[in-house]
Amino acid sequence: MTLEAIIYENGKLKILDQLLLPSVSKYITIEGVKDGWNAINKMQVRGAPAIAIVGSLSLAVEIYNENFDSKQSFKQEIENKLNYLVSARPTAVNMKIAADDLTSLVRELANDEAVTLHELKSSFLKSAERMLAKDISDNKAIGKCGADEILSNVPADCAIKILTHCNTGSLATAGYGTALGVIRSVHERSRLEHVYCTETRPYNQGARLTAYELVHDKLPATLICDNMVASLFKHRCVSAVVVGADRVAANGDTANKIGTYQMAVVAKHHGASFYVAAPLTSIDLTITSGGCITIEERPEREMTHIGELRIAAPGIACWNPAFDVTPADLITGIITEKGVFKPKELKDKITELAATEKKNEIL
Amino acid sequence: MTLEAIIYENGKLKILDQLLLPSVSKYITIEGVKDGWNAINKMQVRGAPAIAIVGSLSLAVEIYNENFDSKQSFKQEIENKLNYLVSARPTAVNMKIAADDLTSLVRELANDEAVTLHELKSSFLKSAERMLAKDISDNKAIGKCGADEILSNVPADCAIKILTHCNTGSLATAGYGTALGVIRSVHERSRLEHVYCTETRPYNQGARLTAYELVHDKLPATLICDNMVASLFKHRCVSAVVVGADRVAANGDTANKIGTYQMAVVAKHHGASFYVAAPLTSIDLTITSGGCITIEERPEREMTHIGELRIAAPGIACWNPAFDVTPADLITGIITEKGVFKPKELKDKITELAATEKKNEIL
Repeated sequence: MTLEAIIYENGKLKILDQLLLPSVSKYITIEGVKDGWNAINKMQVRGAPAIAIVGSLSLAVEIYNENFDSKQSFKQEIENKLNYLVSARPTAVNMKIAADDLTSLVRELANDEAVTLHELKSSFLKSAERMLAKDISDNKAIGKCGADEILSNVPADCAIKILTHCNTGSLATAGYGTALGVIRSVHERSRLEHVYCTETRPYNQGARLTAYELVHDKLPATLICDNMVASLFKHRCVSAVVVGADRVAANGDTANKIGTYQMAVVAKHHGASFYVAAPLTSIDLTITSGGCITIEERPEREMTHIGELRIAAPGIACWNPAFDVTPADLITGIITEKGVFKPKELKDKITELAATEKKNEIL
Repeated sequence: MTLEAIIYENGKLKILDQLLLPSVSKYITIEGVKDGWNAINKMQVRGAPAIAIVGSLSLAVEIYNENFDSKQSFKQEIENKLNYLVSARPTAVNMKIAADDLTSLVRELANDEAVTLHELKSSFLKSAERMLAKDISDNKAIGKCGADEILSNVPADCAIKILTHCNTGSLATAGYGTALGVIRSVHERSRLEHVYCTETRPYNQGARLTAYELVHDKLPATLICDNMVASLFKHRCVSAVVVGADRVAANGDTANKIGTYQMAVVAKHHGASFYVAAPLTSIDLTITSGGCITIEERPEREMTHIGELRIAAPGIACWNPAFDVTPADLITGIITEKGVFKPKELKDKITELAATEKKNEIL
């Protein structure tokens, strides 16, 4: 059973408290926006889409059984509470975007005389609920496309070994995951011989979060250190690497968690395929190439300490880039919910998809 | 001033307590074999040559001011105490080899009627002291050869950036170090722009020990995670990688700390030189290639915990190979105390050196 970190049904919301992971698995109930604000602010929920979804659903929970006097008072309460939710982590841009979208929707319907209060409330609830469902269904489509692609390159009935990096699963998305979604999909077809995940220093998302998901889902899995990738290729016949993406440029260059670029270099040396799995929203055609992407450098303390424990010699300087850019020529394919694209064809295919979608909207 | 972890003079011995590093730098006095045994057994001293040297010198300290009745009683005491020292860490083969050598020497001289008790004791003390001096002078010769080689490939007056892995310095040898000796030598010629060292997961020898030595010696140094090597090459123009070796095979294939092979692959991709620095004693011509070297797999706990703190999800399996083998074709040169050799010429050159040495001994 795939790990679900956000569970919502009929006005009831529970989330897995990520602060207690990986040692304790405890769901906390979110009773309304105050709980939602706290969960986001204390980082009990993390990951860009997950924050927006938990915030929006916490408001759905709050109003689910509430009665309103008028469409205007409904609209006012929604606006106030969305603003409050955005303040929980002001830098988390996804919550702001979700709040703007929901506010626009409510304003539009509140001003439409043909829409009743009941319909307005119902539309709002459906929109919030749809965010969760869409993120999961997009990830499942990514998983399907990726599994189709990878398995089409190996003999039928042959089980494969896959390597992944960082966390791209149910704990980083609304559920199922991107790169981890591809791996889950291969496993569901009984074609996964083994999955390897790297620790992902310095923040250890692989050791803490991906390993937790793999143990939860009972996938055949092994953790390695980031410096063991080349040895793994040499001794364990890994077929493919699948990683996520923070941003994909128009030419296919991909910014992702530090260590991704090195993994791509090592995969190439050993003749293994290297895939990036990402929703279309992560592909930014306005960025021409990876050279335009600024790499955030994070505090030294992430490297020198684990919690309060110092692990590096006092006085040593550290270099701690959070991301790196993998050049398109090291990437076999970019796996999206609408298909797998070669980096070279990415721009044309995405432009084509957008045109088709626009046409369908008009028709 | 180069870090000295073992300080001996006129029957007085002090060692840096490695158990307290990197947070506390404290020298402990070794008053005799009991202290020597404890320091080895408790791992206050580590590294194959260092254990043998501290053990032998602890015996030198013990007998330095002692008077003996006869050559036979001297011989008996030396044999008993060397056996006792070997028992401190029975798997540390270097202490056993040193004990055998010293025992042979003492037996031979004790049976030689031309040798007085005073001469016997003096020879023993000199032999023990020579072990420390020889290891350091070999490392200094490695440093000189390596610096000559690396600097011969860059424009004069050009300062360079070097990357190293694991710990190969004063804390792993009797002093100065092998790969770190090369870096120290480049720095002494004012040609070191910067040195980068990797954490070296899972045991963090780079973050704890190499970083400690670099801070102590005031070298311009920065720590990176093991997954940042490719990014470092891309953004920081590193000229050369210098690493140590556990064993070098006749064809130049090199077994060293896990992560070395991956670093060599990444160096090649970026067109950087990759050097192995090792004393001639680490080159084993009886091993034809790296394929014959068995890789030790270490306990999972080294990866899942730091001290008592669990850092990986419970239940995840781990793969923890202690070493890897870097194929000769990724190695630019092997730096020894007698010169720098291309992997292809290694066997012939070493055989030649051994023949010359034998000839000199006879003459």
